[in-house]
Amino acid sequence: MWASAGRSDTTMGKKVLILSAHPDDAVTCMGGTICKLQAEGHSVSVFAFGNGDEDYAEPGGSAEAVRRYRENTEKAYAILGCQLECLWLPDFADFQTRELYRECIRAIRKYQPDIVFAHWWAEYFQHTTMATISRDAWNQARWLCSGDLGAPWNPAKYYHFSGADGVGQITHIVDISPYIERKLDAHRAFAFRFFDKDNDDAENVRKRNAYEGSLIGVDYAETFQRSFYFPEPVTDTTALF
Amino acid sequence: MWASAGRSDTTMGKKVLILSAHPDDAVTCMGGTICKLQAEGHSVSVFAFGNGDEDYAEPGGSAEAVRRYRENTEKAYAILGCQLECLWLPDFADFQTRELYRECIRAIRKYQPDIVFAHWWAEYFQHTTMATISRDAWNQARWLCSGDLGAPWNPAKYYHFSGADGVGQITHIVDISPYIERKLDAHRAFAFRFFDKDNDDAENVRKRNAYEGSLIGVDYAETFQRSFYFPEPVTDTTALF
Amino acid sequence: MWASAGRSDTTMGKKVLILSAHPDDAVTCMGGTICKLQAEGHSVSVFAFGNGDEDYAEPGGSAEAVRRYRENTEKAYAILGCQLECLWLPDFADFQTRELYRECIRAIRKYQPDIVFAHWWAEYFQHTTMATISRDAWNQARWLCSGDLGAPWNPAKYYHFSGADGVGQITHIVDISPYIERKLDAHRAFAFRFFDKDNDDAENVRKRNAYEGSLIGVDYAETFQRSFYFPEPVTDTTALF
Amino acid sequence: MWASAGRSDTTMGKKVLILSAHPDDAVTCMGGTICKLQAEGHSVSVFAFGNGDEDYAEPGGSAEAVRRYRENTEKAYAILGCQLECLWLPDFADFQTRELYRECIRAIRKYQPDIVFAHWWAEYFQHTTMATISRDAWNQARWLCSGDLGAPWNPAKYYHFSGADGVGQITHIVDISPYIERKLDAHRAFAFRFFDKDNDDAENVRKRNAYEGSLIGVDYAETFQRSFYFPEPVTDTTALF
Amino acid sequence: MWASAGRSDTTMGKKVLILSAHPDDAVTCMGGTICKLQAEGHSVSVFAFGNGDEDYAEPGGSAEAVRRYRENTEKAYAILGCQLECLWLPDFADFQTRELYRECIRAIRKYQPDIVFAHWWAEYFQHTTMATISRDAWNQARWLCSGDLGAPWNPAKYYHFSGADGVGQITHIVDISPYIERKLDAHRAFAFRFFDKDNDDAENVRKRNAYEGSLIGVDYAETFQRSFYFPEPVTDTTALF
Amino acid sequence: MWASAGRSDTTMGKKVLILSAHPDDAVTCMGGTICKLQAEGHSVSVFAFGNGDEDYAEPGGSAEAVRRYRENTEKAYAILGCQLECLWLPDFADFQTRELYRECIRAIRKYQPDIVFAHWWAEYFQHTTMATISRDAWNQARWLCSGDLGAPWNPAKYYHFSGADGVGQITHIVDISPYIERKLDAHRAFAFRFFDKDNDDAENVRKRNAYEGSLIGVDYAETFQRSFYFPEPVTDTTALF
Repeated sequence: MWASAGRSDTTMGKKVLILSAHPDDAVTCMGGTICKLQAEGHSVSVFAFGNGDEDYAEPGGSAEAVRRYRENTEKAYAILGCQLECLWLPDFADFQTRELYRECIRAIRKYQPDIVFAHWWAEYFQHTTMATISRDAWNQARWLCSGDLGAPWNPAKYYHFSGADGVGQITHIVDISPYIERKLDAHRAFAFRFFDKDNDDAENVRKRNAYEGSLIGVDYAETFQRSFYFPEPVTDTTALF
Repeated sequence: MWASAGRSDTTMGKKVLILSAHPDDAVTCMGGTICKLQAEGHSVSVFAFGNGDEDYAEPGGSAEAVRRYRENTEKAYAILGCQLECLWLPDFADFQTRELYRECIRAIRKYQPDIVFAHWWAEYFQHTTMATISRDAWNQARWLCSGDLGAPWNPAKYYHFSGADGVGQITHIVDISPYIERKLDAHRAFAFRFFDKDNDDAENVRKRNAYEGSLIGVDYAETFQRSFYFPEPVTDTTALF
Repeated sequence: MWASAGRSDTTMGKKVLILSAHPDDAVTCMGGTICKLQAEGHSVSVFAFGNGDEDYAEPGGSAEAVRRYRENTEKAYAILGCQLECLWLPDFADFQTRELYRECIRAIRKYQPDIVFAHWWAEYFQHTTMATISRDAWNQARWLCSGDLGAPWNPAKYYHFSGADGVGQITHIVDISPYIERKLDAHRAFAFRFFDKDNDDAENVRKRNAYEGSLIGVDYAETFQRSFYFPEPVTDTTALF
Repeated sequence: MWASAGRSDTTMGKKVLILSAHPDDAVTCMGGTICKLQAEGHSVSVFAFGNGDEDYAEPGGSAEAVRRYRENTEKAYAILGCQLECLWLPDFADFQTRELYRECIRAIRKYQPDIVFAHWWAEYFQHTTMATISRDAWNQARWLCSGDLGAPWNPAKYYHFSGADGVGQITHIVDISPYIERKLDAHRAFAFRFFDKDNDDAENVRKRNAYEGSLIGVDYAETFQRSFYFPEPVTDTTALF
Repeated sequence: MWASAGRSDTTMGKKVLILSAHPDDAVTCMGGTICKLQAEGHSVSVFAFGNGDEDYAEPGGSAEAVRRYRENTEKAYAILGCQLECLWLPDFADFQTRELYRECIRAIRKYQPDIVFAHWWAEYFQHTTMATISRDAWNQARWLCSGDLGAPWNPAKYYHFSGADGVGQITHIVDISPYIERKLDAHRAFAFRFFDKDNDDAENVRKRNAYEGSLIGVDYAETFQRSFYFPEPVTDTTALF
Repeated sequence: MWASAGRSDTTMGKKVLILSAHPDDAVTCMGGTICKLQAEGHSVSVFAFGNGDEDYAEPGGSAEAVRRYRENTEKAYAILGCQLECLWLPDFADFQTRELYRECIRAIRKYQPDIVFAHWWAEYFQHTTMATISRDAWNQARWLCSGDLGAPWNPAKYYHFSGADGVGQITHIVDISPYIERKLDAHRAFAFRFFDKDNDDAENVRKRNAYEGSLIGVDYAETFQRSFYFPEPVTDTTALF
């Protein structure tokens, strides 16, 4: 049996938790939605894992990469104005461990979010693993178990985000037109130069969001898949309309 | 671009259209939800195709089968209290034709439903075909096209129902506890004896609905998959909570 | 509810029905298994549809193609020694019609087979359609319906065969080593020259069957997928061993 | 056995055939690639089926819609400068018939293309059916069969295009930057007003192509999936690099 | 090549091994089948891993949870009357390790079962991992390898069980009507209160089993999917009937 | 954005890297293609992980197994004449670790291959894991990251190989007719006796390759699936022919 989720009576002042492999994933995949949620009176917290220690192009650059990534992360989150908690683990680490699974449950119980956003199974490696441990932590956080990790909590809804590979069947398209420049500023704060020493890919992110916007007739949008891992119980058919 | 659907300001007095291969499919798959929708103030119309001319066990029984099926259909719909329009076509007919595709578009434009329910791609033959033509008619009914079939109409939501084979990923589970006996009465009105001359399978339908109810902690329920063939445009994040 | 299938007490003298788009499909895909079944005391009937009227390379050759295909079919079936009933319909005809669906039900009720073999959803066009109408006819032949088509019959088992594209998940691999030459003789009787005017592809069929044999350590084999469209009811756990 | 495809020694002056449900599908989905192919010295022919008789919003407008659609089609193809052959069949007609299957084989044998482009199984109704009959016609056009439809022909490559629903796994992304305005002009020639009486969706098409361009670092692109229904025979490993 | 499995001549007195993430999974998912197998003269052993150390709702309750879970496990297995061997590892531990993979191979070689039952890839985390390591251990236990883990053994058949998320395509439905109360008693012995402090979910398990029973016309049943990871070699066509 | 891959102007003298769970996998799955690539002037390197320490049938045989596996590996690679680098890790080890992921990136950057061959997601355990870490290392090796592991490198193409379970949708079939005996000699050098103390399975490998050859009309072939994880950017339509 799926426990029914507790929902507050109002849609104002909700709490949102984003489980993100690295701090930058939340920014690039849903930075506009973060801005919009906050502008509409909700609070957003990001819980992340990686420290960027592989983000350096010249030998011996790892320690400096960690320092720089942390500094840039702070800039980006200052621009977005949302809360971040990060474990600062090494990149490429195996995330499918007892410890990190417990950390996800602990985060859900600590932040008591109304909705959770987490990775989809596309892209690569840690993002794939995060998709699994996030969804399963969502499942078990609501059980009467693991009392040391906090009291049971059952976020009412759960959405997948993804980078350029998409979320498969899109279920929601969020209009982020007023926030696109702020999102791109936050994205640029990371100063990623993964493919081109002279340019980040902020303009590519803009094009993706413009295309996604065109699907619903707005300038810029971000796309999500709502998880129905727990189907929606309908006691009043209003929920169907 | 997906056109945004017009939704009325209230959730009272909505219109529901069910596209059903035969009149009995709507009863067996979602008879409880039909009762519940009506009890909550909504109107429900069923648009169906088949006449039951293959529902006879002894040679030469086809004409009598048609007569009996029609009579039983009337009984069943009187019990449910919802409206039925049926084309009374032969069973086993090919449904993937220009004519029936146009009939589906016409029905959607005529009834102007807020939500549509239709078959899922499981089970067999005509049900599979109905799943395709219903969904595609939902798509094209909202276009500025086929003016002879009525003015464009865009139902805001679309759900799949299914018989014993299920709807794949369940997204909604409707509590039908108060209506289970009425649904089973309507189901029994068809007096189907497909596998056993002495018993219909109403008790099996009861067990399925009891199991589905147990998934959300109620006595009886019916299960659906919401179609996201058109993703949900989100202009106000309230839609995410 | 799935009706339980009637099975006779003995495994001797069973009846086998093969639903085949064209008479040659049964030969190429499972000719060895046909021989083996007969050698072990079972009777095999093939029910087929197409007349080969597109099997000609020069303009104006259609009528002669029909005559030649029929003659070759007779030779091939004489070699295999099994029964054939064919509707001799035009090639490329649409098989998803009320008439052919009824013919499939009629054939199952007429031959009253213990097991049915039919196409898988691979390859192309009519084979794909045959996969659907055969399986659905298997479903409805057992209903107390369509009395003009014969009394209800429920074959106990159903297997898919396929040409070079395979049957997806293989569930059974039949050792046909003693019958390979007879199968290839029957295959050659059709004298197909689809890709090479000077050679049929009998040696390619041999290589496929040799490879499939190597999967179970025998010289030649054919592969099948058992359909579990109706799961196996287990009243005595012997069925699990 | 898959017959190996005849390929000419040069890549100049190739012939391209596009199988398109309606004439406009080829324009919207791959108009830029049509321009690019022609600019690089190849010839492009489109073979289409539908006449647009459902493209009218007011009752009684069907005849005028056919006339207008035909006129607009001529304008659009004049802009692109490529050849069109159309059967002008009614919209919504069932395409999975013996006649249309034969027409597809006939077209492939008549145009003798080096490569074919055709629909993917997404979107709706006729597009789904076109995906099946086009691919199967590609298969059978190369057989030594159906002599009345022309001599066997085996196009070396086959690509799927699609509208806004995409082609699943993208395999090729074609840079169409120099041709985007010409493509949009051709698209606009159809003057479609499916969702908005005052605007066509040319700017949405632009956004989609901009996003697809950003995937490979160019301004505008169109995306395709190469069909490996027939795997690539490799006799010289050069084909692997 | 798949090695052919050794099968004894009789179906009496077979050995059954169940690989279960936790001892309770075997009870909830297939406790009725365990009873039935034993009642028909077969022996059943369960090999499990987890110790329940996360099954506590109040902080600091882990040690007591382990003690209680062990005690309850003993009660449940006493009710079922079948053998249990458990490694009592921490919950949430990563099961995809060299050590646990070797333990699975060792268990299969030690118990020398005729058939194995193991998890399906549904549900979550450790159940997903168990599905992989169990099936792969089934594969490698029969190799002439890893001599320290015992002599090669090849169980003839392998079935997947699952909790409420089901096993995908059901292939076998076992009538457990006479054993339902005993199964539910064993289930209740665990005294799970995952979602409701006052009630376990035994009545939900009853409803699921009633629904599954209705699929084959009996009161209660459990459902399984037979694995055809190794297809069935057929040397005598009796195996097909 | 996907970075475009650097390709040299000539197809002669290319570098090929094979990522192989154990040294023998590359031989059995694509030994013929290795020979062919070298005969056509390309260089082939294999990077592997496992040491064969589980390949012994009698207790206590592990150390001797490691020695023998290494000796046989040398023989096999001398027959093929290609380069091997192996980490000689224990069999059954977990490959999804930070260390091995980094080793894969390091190997791609060190060998700077034009094309990579790696496992497909079929078969079992480590092969499944290798499929994931190889593809993801292919992705990240081209990033401006992890400077200690060498300079970024982007192999232009990537193919999947597989053992008897196949690669799903085949995209390339390589004619290995002249090299079949050399491949089988190399295969036999491993002297595997996994299922039969008196015979290796070289003749089964021959039958598989004969069947795969028959698909394109040659004596022996090996099959592959090209990965389109990064779609092909097309700036000149020549790439489409």
